[in-house]
Amino acid sequence: MGSSKHIGSSTIRFASAPVFLSWANCGGKMEAQGPLSRYFDLLEEDSFWGEQTWEQAESTMQIRAMELALKKANLKRGDISLAFGGDLLNQCTGTSFAMRHWGMPYFGAYTACATMAESLILAAMSIDGGYADHTAAIASSHYCTAERQYRTPMPYGNQRTPTAQWTATACGCCILGGAGSGPRITHAVPGRITDPGLTDPNSMGAAMAPAAYETISAYFRDTGEGPKDFDLILTGDLGRFGSDILRELFDRDNIDMSKNYFDCGELLYNIPKQDMHCGGSGAGCSAAVLAGYLLDNLTSGKWRRILFAPTGALLSTTSVFQGESIPGIAHALVIEADKEVSA
Amino acid sequence: MGSSKHIGSSTIRFASAPVFLSWANCGGKMEAQGPLSRYFDLLEEDSFWGEQTWEQAESTMQIRAMELALKKANLKRGDISLAFGGDLLNQCTGTSFAMRHWGMPYFGAYTACATMAESLILAAMSIDGGYADHTAAIASSHYCTAERQYRTPMPYGNQRTPTAQWTATACGCCILGGAGSGPRITHAVPGRITDPGLTDPNSMGAAMAPAAYETISAYFRDTGEGPKDFDLILTGDLGRFGSDILRELFDRDNIDMSKNYFDCGELLYNIPKQDMHCGGSGAGCSAAVLAGYLLDNLTSGKWRRILFAPTGALLSTTSVFQGESIPGIAHALVIEADKEVSA
Repeated sequence: MGSSKHIGSSTIRFASAPVFLSWANCGGKMEAQGPLSRYFDLLEEDSFWGEQTWEQAESTMQIRAMELALKKANLKRGDISLAFGGDLLNQCTGTSFAMRHWGMPYFGAYTACATMAESLILAAMSIDGGYADHTAAIASSHYCTAERQYRTPMPYGNQRTPTAQWTATACGCCILGGAGSGPRITHAVPGRITDPGLTDPNSMGAAMAPAAYETISAYFRDTGEGPKDFDLILTGDLGRFGSDILRELFDRDNIDMSKNYFDCGELLYNIPKQDMHCGGSGAGCSAAVLAGYLLDNLTSGKWRRILFAPTGALLSTTSVFQGESIPGIAHALVIEADKEVSA
Repeated sequence: MGSSKHIGSSTIRFASAPVFLSWANCGGKMEAQGPLSRYFDLLEEDSFWGEQTWEQAESTMQIRAMELALKKANLKRGDISLAFGGDLLNQCTGTSFAMRHWGMPYFGAYTACATMAESLILAAMSIDGGYADHTAAIASSHYCTAERQYRTPMPYGNQRTPTAQWTATACGCCILGGAGSGPRITHAVPGRITDPGLTDPNSMGAAMAPAAYETISAYFRDTGEGPKDFDLILTGDLGRFGSDILRELFDRDNIDMSKNYFDCGELLYNIPKQDMHCGGSGAGCSAAVLAGYLLDNLTSGKWRRILFAPTGALLSTTSVFQGESIPGIAHALVIEADKEVSA
């Protein structure tokens, strides 16, 4: 049963290669000042997005991104048989309140900043397996909701350490289908938790790098492929420090990641001109970079094939206070520019 | 594509009817004093489960339940291609830290107390679609971790209102496969958020009852079935007050739920002898009732076919403080006693 859908120990092959029918993203002020600003559908200076609270603003970003993605795909809310999504807020309320607006069948996903990858893999599985005709995957984060939940209230003007990252105020939404034209998901690797024993919540790139290494290595092992088989390899939000660690981990295996490996958290901002220290993070970071810069350029013909591997740090303020180390995880997807993929 | 896997607007049909290969559950002191105590694999008086914190105790419950379920199925951790699970802790750390122990490919699920249903549906989809040979679904809650996170620190001895429920200290774990004998999942209904506009976090049964009504009604509409087609219909944790509301909602449609509909939150405790007010709640409540009482009796021959519909209240303390109402959700599964189901 299903053996053709497995490769090696960890890789799933989607025979039908589900299609990205549309995608849309939103960003805030800092994202507007970053190098990817022209790849955003909506950029908003007001951190409240016209709402009363930042939490409502995060849900509003999700609602706007979904609205745009549906419009681009020429679909209505009722056409989405299953929506997968998540965020970093306690009890994932950023997504719940957006999904309340849409009333779509909804499964909440949580693997921290790797949530967009989990959502996309499940959305692709639902299409490829024949359980849904159209699915949506969405993830968001908001600097102000994350800062006060994980660190200190915003008015304190918390000082950040050199290894700290900046939670992106961003959201990405993708709509998948079984037929049509657009970039396609051909493979996926659901990640396993890897915990290097680090306890500093201001150095999450270092905590997540081994997980990214495990997931990407598993794909290389399972398929016999390597960096040369991709135009781009991307992690979610290891930032500058974490991505250096990842390059070093692959160096030990004589795998050269220096040419075409980048991190979404580094791409999103002008570092060091923008004061984001090690770069962006947050569930919205890799989601928004995918649902704009990456999918746009897979469509324009700039790239043919990418490995997209968002990373998550599965900590909470409680786990940190209790002295626990930070479990890392990374899920990966292979995305190819449009062409007929043989089933 | 896949039309045979859809019925009506909301129901998924699993052609292969994935099998429950094994299940195991854990409970605490109150669960040991309840009427289902003999259906628990492990009951522990110590609320810390030998750990330093209640949060660690919750992860330990998950580790113990998974360990037992693997053993009963005669499987090793490496045999599980995908694990789905979640809990109520901020950032779902109860599950993350348990999954760190196991190192299985892991997707975090969050739809509050409906998390076991979401996990099971995704686990069944992964088997039925051919993406995995064995999957695990797990969910937990702990009275002490929930009480201090959602309400007040434990030593305050918080007084509860008459409509309040008691977060179960419990965990359920199920292992699914594509072949073998055991109860089978034949259908699933992923739920949509329904929000009746209620704002009292001490009356969550009322907030969730309309969602349970929507999901169960959708199944009845899609299939033409009704209460008479089931030995039992179960909601997750509407409690006494919420389940009365659900019966009334169905009464308006002339659907009689008075004979075989029950709520897992009511079944778990001796009410009112045990002082649980409206009954049990928590992601572990329906998970533990399923992974013991329900699956045991589907195996013993007592019942042939049940509709299992856990319910979730998608609030957070922040959303409540900000005056938001409580979005409810319910996901449903049809589970049949072992027999060959035609594909």
